[in-house]
Amino acid sequence: MSEFDVGRSKRAREAFSLDDIAVVPSRRTRDAEDVNLNWQIDAYQFEHPIISAPMDSIASPESVVTISNLGGLAVLDVEGLWTRYEDPSEAYQQIRSKLHDNSVLQKFYSKDIQEALIIQRIEFLKSAGVTVAVALSPERTLQFHSLMSKAGVDIFVIRGTTLSAEHVSTKSQTLNLKELIYEIDAPVIAGGVASYKAALHLMRAGAAGVLVGFGGGASHTSTDVLGLRVPMATAISDVAAARREYLDESGGRYVHVIADGSMGKSGDMVKALACGADAVMVGSPLARATDAPGLGFHWGREATHSTLPRGQVVEFGTVGTLAEILRGPSRVADGTMNLVGAVAKSISLCGYTDLKEFQRVEIIAS
Amino acid sequence: MSEFDVGRSKRAREAFSLDDIAVVPSRRTRDAEDVNLNWQIDAYQFEHPIISAPMDSIASPESVVTISNLGGLAVLDVEGLWTRYEDPSEAYQQIRSKLHDNSVLQKFYSKDIQEALIIQRIEFLKSAGVTVAVALSPERTLQFHSLMSKAGVDIFVIRGTTLSAEHVSTKSQTLNLKELIYEIDAPVIAGGVASYKAALHLMRAGAAGVLVGFGGGASHTSTDVLGLRVPMATAISDVAAARREYLDESGGRYVHVIADGSMGKSGDMVKALACGADAVMVGSPLARATDAPGLGFHWGREATHSTLPRGQVVEFGTVGTLAEILRGPSRVADGTMNLVGAVAKSISLCGYTDLKEFQRVEIIAS
Amino acid sequence: MSEFDVGRSKRAREAFSLDDIAVVPSRRTRDAEDVNLNWQIDAYQFEHPIISAPMDSIASPESVVTISNLGGLAVLDVEGLWTRYEDPSEAYQQIRSKLHDNSVLQKFYSKDIQEALIIQRIEFLKSAGVTVAVALSPERTLQFHSLMSKAGVDIFVIRGTTLSAEHVSTKSQTLNLKELIYEIDAPVIAGGVASYKAALHLMRAGAAGVLVGFGGGASHTSTDVLGLRVPMATAISDVAAARREYLDESGGRYVHVIADGSMGKSGDMVKALACGADAVMVGSPLARATDAPGLGFHWGREATHSTLPRGQVVEFGTVGTLAEILRGPSRVADGTMNLVGAVAKSISLCGYTDLKEFQRVEIIAS
Amino acid sequence: MSEFDVGRSKRAREAFSLDDIAVVPSRRTRDAEDVNLNWQIDAYQFEHPIISAPMDSIASPESVVTISNLGGLAVLDVEGLWTRYEDPSEAYQQIRSKLHDNSVLQKFYSKDIQEALIIQRIEFLKSAGVTVAVALSPERTLQFHSLMSKAGVDIFVIRGTTLSAEHVSTKSQTLNLKELIYEIDAPVIAGGVASYKAALHLMRAGAAGVLVGFGGGASHTSTDVLGLRVPMATAISDVAAARREYLDESGGRYVHVIADGSMGKSGDMVKALACGADAVMVGSPLARATDAPGLGFHWGREATHSTLPRGQVVEFGTVGTLAEILRGPSRVADGTMNLVGAVAKSISLCGYTDLKEFQRVEIIAS
Repeated sequence: MSEFDVGRSKRAREAFSLDDIAVVPSRRTRDAEDVNLNWQIDAYQFEHPIISAPMDSIASPESVVTISNLGGLAVLDVEGLWTRYEDPSEAYQQIRSKLHDNSVLQKFYSKDIQEALIIQRIEFLKSAGVTVAVALSPERTLQFHSLMSKAGVDIFVIRGTTLSAEHVSTKSQTLNLKELIYEIDAPVIAGGVASYKAALHLMRAGAAGVLVGFGGGASHTSTDVLGLRVPMATAISDVAAARREYLDESGGRYVHVIADGSMGKSGDMVKALACGADAVMVGSPLARATDAPGLGFHWGREATHSTLPRGQVVEFGTVGTLAEILRGPSRVADGTMNLVGAVAKSISLCGYTDLKEFQRVEIIAS
Repeated sequence: MSEFDVGRSKRAREAFSLDDIAVVPSRRTRDAEDVNLNWQIDAYQFEHPIISAPMDSIASPESVVTISNLGGLAVLDVEGLWTRYEDPSEAYQQIRSKLHDNSVLQKFYSKDIQEALIIQRIEFLKSAGVTVAVALSPERTLQFHSLMSKAGVDIFVIRGTTLSAEHVSTKSQTLNLKELIYEIDAPVIAGGVASYKAALHLMRAGAAGVLVGFGGGASHTSTDVLGLRVPMATAISDVAAARREYLDESGGRYVHVIADGSMGKSGDMVKALACGADAVMVGSPLARATDAPGLGFHWGREATHSTLPRGQVVEFGTVGTLAEILRGPSRVADGTMNLVGAVAKSISLCGYTDLKEFQRVEIIAS
Repeated sequence: MSEFDVGRSKRAREAFSLDDIAVVPSRRTRDAEDVNLNWQIDAYQFEHPIISAPMDSIASPESVVTISNLGGLAVLDVEGLWTRYEDPSEAYQQIRSKLHDNSVLQKFYSKDIQEALIIQRIEFLKSAGVTVAVALSPERTLQFHSLMSKAGVDIFVIRGTTLSAEHVSTKSQTLNLKELIYEIDAPVIAGGVASYKAALHLMRAGAAGVLVGFGGGASHTSTDVLGLRVPMATAISDVAAARREYLDESGGRYVHVIADGSMGKSGDMVKALACGADAVMVGSPLARATDAPGLGFHWGREATHSTLPRGQVVEFGTVGTLAEILRGPSRVADGTMNLVGAVAKSISLCGYTDLKEFQRVEIIAS
Repeated sequence: MSEFDVGRSKRAREAFSLDDIAVVPSRRTRDAEDVNLNWQIDAYQFEHPIISAPMDSIASPESVVTISNLGGLAVLDVEGLWTRYEDPSEAYQQIRSKLHDNSVLQKFYSKDIQEALIIQRIEFLKSAGVTVAVALSPERTLQFHSLMSKAGVDIFVIRGTTLSAEHVSTKSQTLNLKELIYEIDAPVIAGGVASYKAALHLMRAGAAGVLVGFGGGASHTSTDVLGLRVPMATAISDVAAARREYLDESGGRYVHVIADGSMGKSGDMVKALACGADAVMVGSPLARATDAPGLGFHWGREATHSTLPRGQVVEFGTVGTLAEILRGPSRVADGTMNLVGAVAKSISLCGYTDLKEFQRVEIIAS
C-alpha cells in the first residue's frame, strides 16, 4: 500500500480503478472452449460467474428466470417495484419517460411494500425451478427475512451503499449482522464494502459472499454527492486479501469476493476477476437487453432515496436479448455482448483454465 | 511533502486538488441523524459548517437572512452592488444579459460605494436578528471597518485573491493586518491563503478563521491569467497543519480553517472537511437557488476588476430554493441539493459523529 | 520494471503507451537526406521500415504491388476477401455502407476460403516481381502453408490476437510453432506478443521477426471486450530486450522486432522505432489512401469474428495516394502524409544516421 | 532528473509541460505597480519581457513598430511574405480563406525572397526608430546575414525547429554557428533547443540568447508528425541550468533564456518565467490583435514546408488591439488581454519585485 502526503497534515493511499489497469497475456495460450467458468457458492452451482444485480431495470420475476436458465445467478429486489405493485407496468412506463428528474422515482418507490407480493414473487421463482435469490436493504432485513425464509428463498443478498457489521444507531434498533446471519438459514451475500477491514468484519459475521463496491448504478454520483469513491481494482484486491486472512483464521472457510458495480463491459469483468474477484455482479450490461424490464433504461435503488438520491435513470438503449448479451453470439465490438464468451476468451489467451487460477494473471497499470 | 525535479534547476512540490482525492468509508456505520454538524466560531454558533460566500450573485440582504435562518453563516459583500446602488435590480438584470463580456461588470462595479448604504444594509440584517457578517477587500478595510463596527457587524471577513499579513507597498499605506485585527473588536476571518506559512502569519496576526483558496468564482481562470493555482486538498491540509502549530505556540488558540472555493458539489465539501477544514465557504452551489439574487447566474468580485478581470458571469440555471439546496429534500443526484444532508450522510457512512472527528477519515488519491 | 501495489493482494507493473512518451532531439542535427532508412529481413531488402498490414481495407493484390514498388514490404491476407471471392467488390461496397454493424463483416467473412484463389493471388504478386508476403492465422497455418510455399511465397506472417509458441488445446491439434517454422522453407514473422517471455519463445521457435502488439485495428476494443491492453512503448522495449537476450543465447541470430498497431501517425512510428523496433507494421495510415481497396474505410480481421468480434469498420476518409502517404509530399500537418519523410526528418533532427542507431535516442515521458 | 523504465531495454526521463505546473503565492504580497518588468539583452532595453515572434500572422513592418512602441522586442521574419512580395495583401487574404489546406501556404511561400525587399523592410523599421530585430532560418543565415548587417539590423534571431551548434551535412555546407556568430557584429538569439547540452553548445558558440522550444505555432503537431515533444517546464529549467553552468565557465557571460512557444495565455508566460526564463517569445496571443496582419488567423513557418508541413492556419478571432492585449485594460478573463499587467500582478502576489527574483518562486505540479 503506497501512501503519500496530500499536504502537511494528511496522507492518502494511492488507489486504482478498473480503467487504470489491464490484463497482459502470459506466454501460453489455450482454446476458449477449454476454460472452465463454473462458479459455486454454498450448495449452489452456476455455469459462469456473472450475477445479475437486484435492480428493477433488469430484474423482473420473468427476467430472473431467463437469466437463471442462461446459467447464472439472478437476484430479485424484494424492496422494488415488484413488491410494491401487483402490476408495475405503469411505474416502468413513467420512469422511462422522465429521465432527469428523480422525483418520479421517489414517488413510485414511496408506496408500501406488500408482504403478499413478496410471497407471490418468490413462489413464481420457486415454481420456475431456479435458485431463488433476493436482495434486501440492511434496514429492512430484520423485518422481512423470516417471512422470506419460510417462502423458500435460497440465497439472501443484503445490499446497501456501505454495509458494516457494526452499524451504530441511537434511534433505531442497531443491526447486528452476526446474529442476523446466524438466524437466517441460508447463505448470505452482504455488502457493499470498500476496505479490507470492513470485508473482514462481514466475513467474521458469517457472510458467504462479500459485495465489493457501491453497486446500484450510483458509483459515479456517489463521489459528487457524498465525496466517497471506491476504486474497484484496489478494493477488490484488498477484499481478496481479507478472504485469505479469514480463510486462515477460520480454518478453511472460503468467503466469496463479488465485485459489484463499475463494470459496464466484458473487459471490466475480466479485470475484476484478475484482481481477485470470484464473481461479478452487474447491472448496466443487462439493462441493454430487449427482454429486461427496463427496456434499455437503467436505475438503481439509491436513485429512489426520498431526500438524498444518488444516480438517476439512464437510457442505454438495447443491443440484443439477455441470451445474446450473456452467451452470444456478439454482433458488436464494444464489450456489451457475449459477456461469458469474452471472459472465457480472455482467460484462454492468458493461458489459464479456470477462474481461481486466473486471479494470478499479470496486470499492468498506466 | 514529496518534491521532484521539474528540470535541472527547478523543483516542484506534488499537489492535489479535491478531484484527485476521495473519502473511503471505514468499517463502522451510523445513522445520519446521529451526526452532529454544529460549527462554532468565537461566540457564534451555527447548525452546519456551510458558509455562503460574500458574492452578489448569492448574497442580497434578503438572501443572507434566509440562509442564516437555515442555520448557516451568510456573508454580505459590502463592496458589491448593494452598497453602490440603492436599488441594484437594473445592474443585476444587465449583468445577467451579458454573459461573456466583463465590461458590463466593470461598468456597474465602478460606481462609488456609499457609506449610507453600508449602514442601511447592516441595519437591515441586525433588525432581522441574524449574525451580521460582512466582507471587505484588504484595500478598503482601513477605510470602512470602524464605520461598520459602530453599525453593529458581528463578524468581519477580509477576503482578497491572495492575502498576506505583510503586504508591502511603496505608494499606498501598507496594510498591517495585525494592528488592524487588534483594532477591530470582532472576530476576523481572513484570506485567501494557499500555504502553511501564509496561514500561520494570518493566525499570528489574530485571525479567528483563515480562508483557504482563491474563492470568488475565479479559481479556474486564475491559472489562465496569473499562472497561479491552489490545489485545494493540499492547501487545506497545509493550513490545517498551521492550525495545529499555532494551537501549540499560542497555548490553545484554535483558528478555524475555512475552505473557500472549488467546491461545486456536496461531495467536494465532504472532501474539504476530510482534508482538515472546519467549515466551507461556497458560492456556486447557492447560485443555483431560485431565491438567490443572481437567479441562476454567478460571478465573483475578481471578475469586476477594472484592468485585469478574472472569472466571468456563468449561467448555472436554478435547481431549487435555498432551503432545498441547503437542507433538502433533493430531487437530483448530482450533489447540488441537500448539501447539509449529504455531508451528514457521508460522515455517518464513515462512522464518525462530528466534524472534528471526521478530519481523521481515510482518503485515497488516484 | 517498476511495480506497485494495486491493493493488498495484487501488484501491477507500470506500463507506457506511445502517447505517454516522446523523443527529445539530442545536440547534433543532420540533413534528412543523409539518413539511411534501409531495412532488411533475411534476404529481403526494403527502402524503409514501414510494413503495410495484412488487412483487406488496405491490401488488395494491386495495392500490395503499389506499396512494394514504393520501397516497402506489403503483406496480403490470404484468409480475407481476396481468397473467398473471385471478385470481392460487392463485399467491399456493402461493408463500407454498414459502419456500425459487425454482422455484415461476419456474413462476408463466413464464406469458405478457396485454394484456387490463394494460388491465383500469389501468382499475381509473383508476376509483378515484388516480394511475396502473405499472412495466415495460427489456426489455418497448418492447413495452407505447404500449398503456399509451393506457390512461391517469400515471407510468411503468422498473426493472431495473441500468439504463443505453446498453444494448448484438448480438442484441436496443438499448434507446434517450432516444428511448423522448421518445416516452412521461408522466413516467418509471427505475433502478436506483448511480453518479453512470449517474444523469447517465438524467437526460440525460429521466427525471423516478432510482431509486438495486437494489431488488426482492434487495439482499442481489446480492452473493452477482453480487458487486455498492450502498452506499446513498454511492450516494444520488452521485446527488444528479448531480441538482445536471444542474440546472445543463439550466438548471433538477430530477430526483428516489428511494432504492430497503435500507430496512426508518423510521430507514433518514430516513437516505436525509438523504443527499439526494427520496423513498424501499419494499417490505418494507409487506409486513408485513395488507391487502397477500402477507399477510406478500415477494419481488421478480429472485427469479422463470428461470435466475439473486436473492432469495427471505421471511416477515416482519404487524404492522398499511397505514394503521397508513404513518400510525400505532404499537404497536411497531422502526421498522415509523407510517413517515410517524417521518419527520416525526425531521425536527422536527433542527429542519427540509421534505424539501428536511432534506437538509442533519448525519450521523455509525461 | 527522475528516470524510470519504459520497458526492459529503455529508460525515459519524467518531463513536465507548463500545464502540469502552477505558481504558488508565497507569504508576502506587493503592489503590482512596484514590480519592475524591465528586460535588457546586450545594449537593448525593453519595458517588459514579452517578445513578439517572427511570424507573418503577427509581424508586419507596421505591427513590429507598434509592438516596439508598446515597450517590447518585436522580430520580423525576413524569409516570410514581406520579403517575397512587395505587397503581400493578396497572399494574406488567400491564406485566411483556406484554413485546413497547407498547399496554399506552400504555394505563397515558394516564391523567391528578394534582397531589395529585405533592405526595404529593414529601412522602414530603422526610420521608425525601433530596435531592428530580424529572424532567419539556419539554412539562409550564411546567405543573407552580411546584407542585413549592412542594412542596420540590431538583433539577429536564428530560429529553426531544432537548432544545433553542430549541424552535420554531406551535401550542403555545414553551418558552423560559432564562426557565424563571431562574424555577425550584433547580438544573436538562436534556437530552438530543448535540452541542457544543446543550449550549452549554443551558449559556447556565442549566442546572446537561447530560444527554448519549437515555437513557430507547430508545437502541437510536432508530436503527431515527428514524434518530438518539448515539455516546456522541464526544457526551460534545463536550459536555465545551462545558463548557470556557462555563466561560471565563461567567467560571467549571462546568456538569456527565452521560452518560445506553447504560451497561449498570460498565465503560461508567468509559469515560463517561474521556471527560469528571462523572457518569453509569443505568437498566438498577439495573433488575436485587430491590428496584427493576420487579422485573427495564425500560422508558423513550419506550416509552409514544401514536403513535410507541421502546423496549419488556425483561426483565433480577434479580442482587442495590440495595445490592449499587451498593456490592457482587459475586458476578458481568459488570459488573452493585458499580458504585461497579468505578469506584474502575479509577480506582486508572490511578493517579488523583478523578473530575476521571480525565477525563485515556488511551484507545484499536479
